[in-house]
Amino acid sequence: MTTIQDVAKQAGVGAATVSRVLSGKGYVKQETRERVTRAIEALNYTPNEMARNLFHGKSGIVAVIIPELSHPFFSELVNAFEVSLCEVGYQTMVCNTFYEKNYELRYLEMLRRQRVDGIIFGAHTSLASEQYQSLQRPVVGLDRKLAETVPYVAADHEEGGRLAAEELIRSGCRNVVQFGEVEDSVITPSSQRHFVFRKVVEAHGITCASYPKQPNYSAYNTYQESAARLFEEHPDVDGIFGTDLYAAACLQYALAHGIRVPEDVKIVAYDGTYITKFLHPEMTTICQPIRQLANEAVRMITEMINVNEIKENKVILPISIRRGNTTT
Amino acid sequence: MTTIQDVAKQAGVGAATVSRVLSGKGYVKQETRERVTRAIEALNYTPNEMARNLFHGKSGIVAVIIPELSHPFFSELVNAFEVSLCEVGYQTMVCNTFYEKNYELRYLEMLRRQRVDGIIFGAHTSLASEQYQSLQRPVVGLDRKLAETVPYVAADHEEGGRLAAEELIRSGCRNVVQFGEVEDSVITPSSQRHFVFRKVVEAHGITCASYPKQPNYSAYNTYQESAARLFEEHPDVDGIFGTDLYAAACLQYALAHGIRVPEDVKIVAYDGTYITKFLHPEMTTICQPIRQLANEAVRMITEMINVNEIKENKVILPISIRRGNTTT
Repeated sequence: MTTIQDVAKQAGVGAATVSRVLSGKGYVKQETRERVTRAIEALNYTPNEMARNLFHGKSGIVAVIIPELSHPFFSELVNAFEVSLCEVGYQTMVCNTFYEKNYELRYLEMLRRQRVDGIIFGAHTSLASEQYQSLQRPVVGLDRKLAETVPYVAADHEEGGRLAAEELIRSGCRNVVQFGEVEDSVITPSSQRHFVFRKVVEAHGITCASYPKQPNYSAYNTYQESAARLFEEHPDVDGIFGTDLYAAACLQYALAHGIRVPEDVKIVAYDGTYITKFLHPEMTTICQPIRQLANEAVRMITEMINVNEIKENKVILPISIRRGNTTT
Repeated sequence: MTTIQDVAKQAGVGAATVSRVLSGKGYVKQETRERVTRAIEALNYTPNEMARNLFHGKSGIVAVIIPELSHPFFSELVNAFEVSLCEVGYQTMVCNTFYEKNYELRYLEMLRRQRVDGIIFGAHTSLASEQYQSLQRPVVGLDRKLAETVPYVAADHEEGGRLAAEELIRSGCRNVVQFGEVEDSVITPSSQRHFVFRKVVEAHGITCASYPKQPNYSAYNTYQESAARLFEEHPDVDGIFGTDLYAAACLQYALAHGIRVPEDVKIVAYDGTYITKFLHPEMTTICQPIRQLANEAVRMITEMINVNEIKENKVILPISIRRGNTTT
């Protein structure tokens, strides 16, 4: 079988260069890149990790179960998963559950019959964890604690809630509103941010109202409706905390109704997906470490696939704030 | 094997209700939905189409090859693919090529070794079509004409370019700029819109400048840089045409620099993804029929998988304009 050395030799470069070209990591001159690509084509080379998977009778497929791919957070996340899995020779299967338990169930049945090597679970539904154990496949939770025995990775959402609260306190808010708990059956690590947010602002004598999130991502008008309802029911609101799309909808409503941001209302978004970078004023946002979440989950799932066990049962990643102009 | 009738009987509903629950199509009372879900769990039922696939020795997997999942157009599109494929019992494998020919090559090698039943190809790279034929798998092009023998589906981009041009003409623009051809080796059906746009505006004595698109989706600052460059090099611009993210970046730049939209500059976006709905003023946009694109491509690929041939060699879908407040 063709090796990476054969390709390097044919292209007249080092093996490291070939692997940089294959992984897309690190700089490679366009001209060199093309020479390597031609060598790969000429020798019909297959990357090693994949060859290894096939050699060990693995399918080389990892399934990623999420609520909805068209949501900016999950599209950036699955994008990162695909890159990270590809680098270790795995292909990514996407499964949207749309908050429907029976969709999740259907996928589990599909996965039971597919030769999927592992499952990364980030949906908002929650079948009994036995359902997952019955698959007898490695499972890693993404922001989901399925069971004591199922390891998971999540951002430090408590810190995220604290950072958001402190930003609105620093900006002098007195009456804040947050878009809080998801209306579904699961309490996720990410829900924690809302409890912390409330605790911190109330400790500063700030009133805090909470709206539930609508678990229906792609019906985008629900975000605009929620924003309108917030401003109608809380004319005195001077601080808002919600995920990127709620924050964007509130900013849009404010600007459309002569409410100045940040003078009259401060807004802090949560997730930090690209949409927050395209708004004016630019959105202050708590940024989830999307790439690292994907890399860690992939490291964990491949470890479980390869050695069938894993040391840590959870990995919590640091979270940060990116200041825009929706706070002062 | 358990049939849909067994599930219906156990749940005390009709088979149609069970299939509504499974497909997520049509209304089903929550209480009924739960009863059906419990029956499915109790009987360990597997949807028919999937059983059929497995029975016929198919993998039940279709690969979707695109440039980048985190781009709003492709995230909404792959989301629609996943739904549409799931309804006919297929699972979706995502492959990001990131405009890298060697990534595409790597995927083809992976797919050659995977039991993938079909491939939907929407990347912007372009290996020789022989590479695809050598896979001996059904392939459907998405906005890509790989070869005479490879059928494809696309939106009516010529009409899209015309609609955008007429909107800016109607709004009284005299100096327009468009973000035009992608800097890659492929001429895609979607490139046509730029030629038509130029032809139509110039026929009305309007000057039209073109900037190339940067084929680097997720480096979001390139959009802002392109917008800044446009306004610096064309201080007299009064009409802009570009994909959603270019349009959003131009709107953001204008608002940040005291340029009024639509009074001083009119903007028409292309694609119509959700981001255009969260801006203020709301963006006028040409909307691609994303769901229909996915449904048609899935219909074509499943037809090719099942009967190994297909009548039409291309399907062009109608495109429409959604007027916001960035034009007059």
